[in-house]
Amino acid sequence: MKKGLLIVLSGPSGVGKGTVCSELRHKQSDLVYSVSATTRAPRTGEIDGINYFFKTREQFQEMIANDALLEHAEYVGNYYGTPRDFVERTLESGKDIILEIEVQGALKVKEKFPQGVFIFLVPPSLDVLKQRITGRGTENADIIDHRMTVAVEEMNLIHYYDYAVVNDQIDAACHRIQSIIVAEHCRRDRFIEELEEVKEASEKA
Amino acid sequence: MKKGLLIVLSGPSGVGKGTVCSELRHKQSDLVYSVSATTRAPRTGEIDGINYFFKTREQFQEMIANDALLEHAEYVGNYYGTPRDFVERTLESGKDIILEIEVQGALKVKEKFPQGVFIFLVPPSLDVLKQRITGRGTENADIIDHRMTVAVEEMNLIHYYDYAVVNDQIDAACHRIQSIIVAEHCRRDRFIEELEEVKEASEKA
Repeated sequence: MKKGLLIVLSGPSGVGKGTVCSELRHKQSDLVYSVSATTRAPRTGEIDGINYFFKTREQFQEMIANDALLEHAEYVGNYYGTPRDFVERTLESGKDIILEIEVQGALKVKEKFPQGVFIFLVPPSLDVLKQRITGRGTENADIIDHRMTVAVEEMNLIHYYDYAVVNDQIDAACHRIQSIIVAEHCRRDRFIEELEEVKEASEKA
Repeated sequence: MKKGLLIVLSGPSGVGKGTVCSELRHKQSDLVYSVSATTRAPRTGEIDGINYFFKTREQFQEMIANDALLEHAEYVGNYYGTPRDFVERTLESGKDIILEIEVQGALKVKEKFPQGVFIFLVPPSLDVLKQRITGRGTENADIIDHRMTVAVEEMNLIHYYDYAVVNDQIDAACHRIQSIIVAEHCRRDRFIEELEEVKEASEKA
């Protein structure tokens, strides 16, 4: 059985991870989206298991204790995390799964799941990144400067990734990511691993 | 300046390297085809520098002596080889170049040019490979058996390659190879190398 790939899509704040990921899911309906677990209350229309796995604080802490999360973090009093089980069941079923996540979370996932394919989304230039960060709202110059400093620091984490994809145009970025997924399935090691599994299965039969 | 990639397409005899390579050049006109040097006489319609670089025996031996070939071999009294200069000039110009070559030649190229992308074309099954080898002509069973033995030995060389592409359908195989080329351009190392070059160039300017 051909296993799926865990594709981790990350990059600095403001680079457009969410937009690229949505477009990718639209273009490639067989790509499963990793659903996060959270302790925050569901908003109107949000469905458990589709938008999030909604958990109580106790349930979430139990997941942490049982190493049932590939990563987790706390924002504004709520936990968010990536359930390992959902990822592993998807991969076992032969489907690829994509996880869109900020850079710190991606590094934690890499520790627990180094066999993933780590893609770093890069802005076409720092000017474009600043425009995107500025364009988000009406924040003052200090906040924008701070966000830019953080984004530039986050850029340095590119060294931990397998691929760098420039987000110059959404369609072009999606095409590159789709190509990476096809190419990774053709990696010689994966091919030989599958061959061995086929051999073993036929020997057992 | 973004450099091109040397794509080496190889695989066992009868797998369909030539057909896939022709189709790929047809689909992707910006992919340059590596032109071989040879000492055999030009056939009607063959153009020097397009079909082959036609050389005298003396010229060819001088190329060997000067390490001007990425690999060479002798068949039926004629030399054939891959001129290093043509490959390197193409890469410097920023274009990708594809070299279609049998497995032994590919290994020699890998020694001299390890930064190439080595793709091994795989038959969908050994039965299909046998059909293709048999279908080529009216050879007797002994010759076909010998060719199959060679092809199976050649299959073991897959371990020296970066990628394995199954040639189940020409279009599908071409799509995989095109995806590999796009993905290789997105490799983090290549991206950072280009960034450094841009930095150095702007510092010098």
